[in-house]
Amino acid sequence: MNETPGIAVTGASGRMGQMLIREITESDKMHLAAAVERPGHEWIGQDVGTAMGGTELGVTVTDDAAQAFGQVQAVIDFTAPQATLAFAAEAAKAGIVHVIGTTGMSDDEIAQLAPAAKDGAVIVRAGNMSLGVNLLTQLTKQVAAALDVDYDIEIIESHHNQKVDAPSGTALMLGEAAAEGRGVALADVSDRGRDGITGVRKPGDIGFTAIRGGDIVGEHDVMFAAAGERIILRHVASDRALFARGALKAALWGQGKAPGEYDMLDVLGLKG
Amino acid sequence: MNETPGIAVTGASGRMGQMLIREITESDKMHLAAAVERPGHEWIGQDVGTAMGGTELGVTVTDDAAQAFGQVQAVIDFTAPQATLAFAAEAAKAGIVHVIGTTGMSDDEIAQLAPAAKDGAVIVRAGNMSLGVNLLTQLTKQVAAALDVDYDIEIIESHHNQKVDAPSGTALMLGEAAAEGRGVALADVSDRGRDGITGVRKPGDIGFTAIRGGDIVGEHDVMFAAAGERIILRHVASDRALFARGALKAALWGQGKAPGEYDMLDVLGLKG
Amino acid sequence: MNETPGIAVTGASGRMGQMLIREITESDKMHLAAAVERPGHEWIGQDVGTAMGGTELGVTVTDDAAQAFGQVQAVIDFTAPQATLAFAAEAAKAGIVHVIGTTGMSDDEIAQLAPAAKDGAVIVRAGNMSLGVNLLTQLTKQVAAALDVDYDIEIIESHHNQKVDAPSGTALMLGEAAAEGRGVALADVSDRGRDGITGVRKPGDIGFTAIRGGDIVGEHDVMFAAAGERIILRHVASDRALFARGALKAALWGQGKAPGEYDMLDVLGLKG
Amino acid sequence: MNETPGIAVTGASGRMGQMLIREITESDKMHLAAAVERPGHEWIGQDVGTAMGGTELGVTVTDDAAQAFGQVQAVIDFTAPQATLAFAAEAAKAGIVHVIGTTGMSDDEIAQLAPAAKDGAVIVRAGNMSLGVNLLTQLTKQVAAALDVDYDIEIIESHHNQKVDAPSGTALMLGEAAAEGRGVALADVSDRGRDGITGVRKPGDIGFTAIRGGDIVGEHDVMFAAAGERIILRHVASDRALFARGALKAALWGQGKAPGEYDMLDVLGLKG
Repeated sequence: MNETPGIAVTGASGRMGQMLIREITESDKMHLAAAVERPGHEWIGQDVGTAMGGTELGVTVTDDAAQAFGQVQAVIDFTAPQATLAFAAEAAKAGIVHVIGTTGMSDDEIAQLAPAAKDGAVIVRAGNMSLGVNLLTQLTKQVAAALDVDYDIEIIESHHNQKVDAPSGTALMLGEAAAEGRGVALADVSDRGRDGITGVRKPGDIGFTAIRGGDIVGEHDVMFAAAGERIILRHVASDRALFARGALKAALWGQGKAPGEYDMLDVLGLKG
Repeated sequence: MNETPGIAVTGASGRMGQMLIREITESDKMHLAAAVERPGHEWIGQDVGTAMGGTELGVTVTDDAAQAFGQVQAVIDFTAPQATLAFAAEAAKAGIVHVIGTTGMSDDEIAQLAPAAKDGAVIVRAGNMSLGVNLLTQLTKQVAAALDVDYDIEIIESHHNQKVDAPSGTALMLGEAAAEGRGVALADVSDRGRDGITGVRKPGDIGFTAIRGGDIVGEHDVMFAAAGERIILRHVASDRALFARGALKAALWGQGKAPGEYDMLDVLGLKG
Repeated sequence: MNETPGIAVTGASGRMGQMLIREITESDKMHLAAAVERPGHEWIGQDVGTAMGGTELGVTVTDDAAQAFGQVQAVIDFTAPQATLAFAAEAAKAGIVHVIGTTGMSDDEIAQLAPAAKDGAVIVRAGNMSLGVNLLTQLTKQVAAALDVDYDIEIIESHHNQKVDAPSGTALMLGEAAAEGRGVALADVSDRGRDGITGVRKPGDIGFTAIRGGDIVGEHDVMFAAAGERIILRHVASDRALFARGALKAALWGQGKAPGEYDMLDVLGLKG
Repeated sequence: MNETPGIAVTGASGRMGQMLIREITESDKMHLAAAVERPGHEWIGQDVGTAMGGTELGVTVTDDAAQAFGQVQAVIDFTAPQATLAFAAEAAKAGIVHVIGTTGMSDDEIAQLAPAAKDGAVIVRAGNMSLGVNLLTQLTKQVAAALDVDYDIEIIESHHNQKVDAPSGTALMLGEAAAEGRGVALADVSDRGRDGITGVRKPGDIGFTAIRGGDIVGEHDVMFAAAGERIILRHVASDRALFARGALKAALWGQGKAPGEYDMLDVLGLKG
């Protein structure tokens, strides 16, 4: 008998679903116990390992979330908002951990998670499941609060040459954290696209620069620069599997927690 | 009448004393109110600005600490252990802030500061007065506590080519903070001078590397590296006046505080 | 009719062979025309794409190198020394480019390539096929020659936590290049494993430091540090496919070249 | 008798003049032999060391350049265009090295240096006397020529918060070097002020980003980023005395050279 927590993965055939399954099967702290797909999907009834083109994993893909969730300690879910709301209701009935990496949820949809959390689900939800980035966000807020405006804040990010927007969403999230730490609104102090005769830097501004090239996965620096010293909080992502691993950590963390809504800062013990 | 706090500087003729005086006179949050030297010093009785080879500052160098401390709100003191103990007693009588940057104090000497703190001195003491390094130390402990041993910790420092020891004292302080965050003893996990056939890196080790070249003032990186991501906490010192500025900040912070012993983490609000 | 050069890959079933095949099929500057394995290998007679677990590529794996080489403009070969010597003889007969990434060849074995180069093979051989590292080596030599010993040279490398030796072979290659640029022997100036009371840095020394953590593919810095400035030549590898891509570039470069022995510096046009 | 070359400094009372004098007196490869100021300057007739507020140097400030240049092997000149043209004529008569760091010279004024170079002056002129930046410019051109457009070029610079323009002049100079290496016009490929929905990066573009904060003296990165690897050429200036030291090196290099016009690339042996 396997005493590690059993995990269900929803959207098992998707790019993220398959990555989660690979990470879970490689972990010795949990085991894959269920794989869920939507009714009618061609994988239903197949062994999920075989369907993925690899070795058999002994887990048959199902479209019956209720039954699947009854056999596991946690479900990891990177699907779509409406599916996620339905899964949350099932997670509540089963009284298990529901790790949500689904993006694009509206404020309304997020509000609809509350009943599930009240009814028994341990929900851990985050827009970015990377431990490092969540940690960096928290540190940024904290350092911005500790240092005065003599420390110029610059957020520098590098990404691959196919990225279509600048600065990155994560850079903006870090900027929000810095502004919150300082007790100002980011919109009032944001300095973007610096070019030409700019004049001297305005004290209190938060600057953003975006570097693009090659296949850089994602790098973010938050620099606090004053006369005589600089503090730089830096995150380098080198593998998109990071997001999967963050979700696994959340699933483990949630074991034995009281039902409710949590985020990655809770998982990291950095709340407050 | 000048309503900013008046500051006394001890060891006024020394390299650090002069740097403190320059920083205080350039600040609009405080003013230089006294300059102290040891009895018999050639600067006694001269204007301290003139003695420093610059313009007159209106402050005459004195060897009477008791009288000087009676006229100020704080004293900044980078001298020697025995002198510092005597100054602490005078600061207690005057009921002022005593910022101590004196290095090389033994545990015994440090213990002798307690009566002064009890009798009315607001003592702020730190081995390294740089705000950034103190902040980095605290962040290092915190991140080391938040992340598990999948995150390899490496401490990398760069200094000028005249430095005679490796790793730097600050690198070791950062290593201690990382070990404390993880709940281990640094001596048990320290990996220094890596060279040759080392075998694979031992999980849980804290590695140190020392780069030497040119006139680098001091750079410290604390790297937490796992599969897929790295977090790097980095400090770059570019000017030794940092230490003076940290002391000024401490002098201001101490205004109105209860007598007692504090350090730079209190000043930064990072305690805990 | 396909007018791009046709390429043969030896050791087609190996990790590097498969990576080469993937890179060639993704390139629009060349096409895969042959796949070679040793006699008796289970892939012989199969379509190489199918054997790799993907889509059919229209190239059947063969053990007849002579015939295969007669149908191509270049062969890329990351196999073993004895196999490589035999392939070189066949490449000479076919009058084609032979790109050799095989490692571990002795000086004797390397000398045995000369007849093939004389008889018609355009041999391009390098211990490290990464364009960037080869370029960095050349730049290092050049900068070391241009700057005097006021510029302290430090070579800093970072690799994953499974690496068993320090410094890396590439770091040592960079150190050799720096020493050659300065006209000294690396053994006389090498400073490794710096730790403890080291004394001041000796002018002219070349320092090495090795950072280990996570899954870092490989990063190398060559720093030249003097009073007031630093020049840093930096290489970051983020994907082992680099070696494959360097080999492809060499195969294209060799088209139309006179028979002989070349290396990656020739390919890059950096010889001299 | 002092056998090192004797050096004259023009504009001796200026910020750069004084820095040059300090660097020369600290060097054991040359000695200060003359200090020149314009007629009527208050320093004329005084010892230049005393005038600078320090110890006596045994060199009296003069306004007679012709006589001064007759006693030296080189003159270092960071003054103004018209003064520099007059000094060049005198340097030609004396047959000495004329190191010109004067900025803001028009093309016309530069053309007027030709007769002096023909008549006996060894002229070394550069817009930026830092060895490192000149070297980096040359390396940038060379690497840009060696690598194809799969390598995205990004130029990243960091400066203090008082700088009023972006990107820096040096960043633009590096961009020009990169464009020249690629055989394109910088104006056609320059990508500045990246912000908002930018679309994917255009192949062949040269991107610029400007970071501002604290008192950063000047840092420049030229990044070449492709799939799987990055090469970064980096320069860090930490002291404005760099420019003075570059001039001293040029003065020594010029000893024994044929009259003519040279630049810092000649001094570094990087021409071509």
